[in-house]
Amino acid sequence: MTATKAFAAQSATSGMGPHDIERRPLRKDDVAIEIDYCGVCHTDIHFVENDWGVTVYPVVPGHEIVGRVTAVGPDVRAYKEGDVVGVGCMVDSCRTCSACEAGLEQYCSGGMTATYNGEDRHDHSVTYGGYSERIIVSERFVVRIPEKLDTKKAAPLLCAGITTYSPLRHYGVKPGHKVGVIGMGGLGHMGVKFAKALGAEVTIFTRSESKVAEAKNQGADHVVISSDEDQMAGVAETFDFMLDTVPVQHDLNPYLNCLKFDGTHIIVGLLEPIEPALEAGALVFKRRVLAGSLIGGMPETQEVLDFCAEHDISCDVEMLDIHNINEAYKRMKKGDVKYRFVIDMKSLKDS
Amino acid sequence: MTATKAFAAQSATSGMGPHDIERRPLRKDDVAIEIDYCGVCHTDIHFVENDWGVTVYPVVPGHEIVGRVTAVGPDVRAYKEGDVVGVGCMVDSCRTCSACEAGLEQYCSGGMTATYNGEDRHDHSVTYGGYSERIIVSERFVVRIPEKLDTKKAAPLLCAGITTYSPLRHYGVKPGHKVGVIGMGGLGHMGVKFAKALGAEVTIFTRSESKVAEAKNQGADHVVISSDEDQMAGVAETFDFMLDTVPVQHDLNPYLNCLKFDGTHIIVGLLEPIEPALEAGALVFKRRVLAGSLIGGMPETQEVLDFCAEHDISCDVEMLDIHNINEAYKRMKKGDVKYRFVIDMKSLKDS
Repeated sequence: MTATKAFAAQSATSGMGPHDIERRPLRKDDVAIEIDYCGVCHTDIHFVENDWGVTVYPVVPGHEIVGRVTAVGPDVRAYKEGDVVGVGCMVDSCRTCSACEAGLEQYCSGGMTATYNGEDRHDHSVTYGGYSERIIVSERFVVRIPEKLDTKKAAPLLCAGITTYSPLRHYGVKPGHKVGVIGMGGLGHMGVKFAKALGAEVTIFTRSESKVAEAKNQGADHVVISSDEDQMAGVAETFDFMLDTVPVQHDLNPYLNCLKFDGTHIIVGLLEPIEPALEAGALVFKRRVLAGSLIGGMPETQEVLDFCAEHDISCDVEMLDIHNINEAYKRMKKGDVKYRFVIDMKSLKDS
Repeated sequence: MTATKAFAAQSATSGMGPHDIERRPLRKDDVAIEIDYCGVCHTDIHFVENDWGVTVYPVVPGHEIVGRVTAVGPDVRAYKEGDVVGVGCMVDSCRTCSACEAGLEQYCSGGMTATYNGEDRHDHSVTYGGYSERIIVSERFVVRIPEKLDTKKAAPLLCAGITTYSPLRHYGVKPGHKVGVIGMGGLGHMGVKFAKALGAEVTIFTRSESKVAEAKNQGADHVVISSDEDQMAGVAETFDFMLDTVPVQHDLNPYLNCLKFDGTHIIVGLLEPIEPALEAGALVFKRRVLAGSLIGGMPETQEVLDFCAEHDISCDVEMLDIHNINEAYKRMKKGDVKYRFVIDMKSLKDS
């Protein structure tokens, strides 16, 4: 089921159209946002098509949201009308567990409230995301878009950006480190930019010879064709970190062997489950680590935006009219986008 | 093939008996050791039976060696005749790679030289281990047994001890941490002692209700029956670390879910490959880590001995006559030893 079909299903059952998604009245700590741009994440497709069996229809996807504040609740301190702000993958959490207290709301022990297809912690309604004219979000889960950033290109930083930035920062990537980035999509190309900005020597791993020039163009110092066994053997025990952005099942073992002793392979995709089976020896014999990472907490989501402003980093985007979303999904499934679609929300308002 | 059979095979082909294993003349940095005790590690069985297809017969197993120095080469500085010393799982490494320079010789980029069934870096002969009257080892790979330690009980510290101590230290286990120890064999019971001595709250995971009293006796604060789903659910997201000492394939997923966010599951066994398949989500959604660890470097092997002397820690052992080694292997396969067999080498000399 596509987003448009989801809207259609909604219309059929409730008589509502896409303009009629109800947004709650402002709570004391709420920020009301008029959405300008929303990035399109592969996760959106999974939810629209109910790949994970958890979609509640109608679903309004979108968690790479940039817009302008139109109103604030009485307790809001950080934002005022007219501010340019962003909303990422979550809109609430318990706020009291150790993860929340550490500003790592994505690891909330009670589970974060997802920006869409989540359950509101107060009224238990389903949350609706950014393929929309507006959204209302508690202040804690709103970030400020630095003036220096192009707002269109900033939208994907809220998911693709923070997802790759967070683990590189958590593991302390710095000058002298060698970082391999696996996959060259929306996440991978951001991973290259961040690893370079943090001072690392960066190698892109790609299956396709045809992407070498493109990889170099993205700023990679080196490119390794991962399907070429000789090239893989040539970089054995070379890397401090592997940032694995591939969102589908693949064999991790050849990449583990590219890590130095004490090296870390970071997965940010849901490769359920990890097959072919992992070789324990690749971890044990070199004290290597396989680590997971999920987006980033709210302080770090602000940090990545500020980091991008400081280092003149943005996402490479292709602008999209909402009416072409189904075509965009088809192209994304073929990997045919450089590197992130961003919906111009004017196209929804004009419809 | 058992150790005795290996000796027999050797006799058949070379006319040599177990007393005739040739030891090299002393090199400048060599320490000659008369062996008093040698612990029996499950790895010995794998090599004797050629489970990994790499055994070179005749094999002389044994890498938990304690004895007395009988002679030293002219360049040896740290040891003299009569010193009580130990030798663990390795007897050489390249000494120049970054791992060796960091005192982590077990991760040597050229591969460490194993105490037995290894290849000597100088004359390319096969190395012979501790089921023997004597051994000659380069000074760098010899450690001092602190006077305070019972030498019989110190032998297993050279493998079972350092294997569990090293990752607990590497990951900084300290008071306030909750550590789960999976498996209650030679390694597991040492892991409990170390984690307790480092100040952690320790839970033993065992499949068997019958081991609860024993686990408490080992100093565990809590025991969880891992086959009991309710008990496992009751400790979900509870632990900072899991020290997984189980040396055979098992499902890691239920244990991953027992880790807090940012928790680390440490494997020290060769679970080739890791099946059932690992759930990526268990890592990604909580930023958990799956880490391998292999014995410890030489400085840390000395450290664990000193730590044991300071904290009055030793291995629980059952003394063994070399002539009963095959019976011991049979019992080890059934898990019937508390917790480590140690061969009294007098029994070899007397034979």
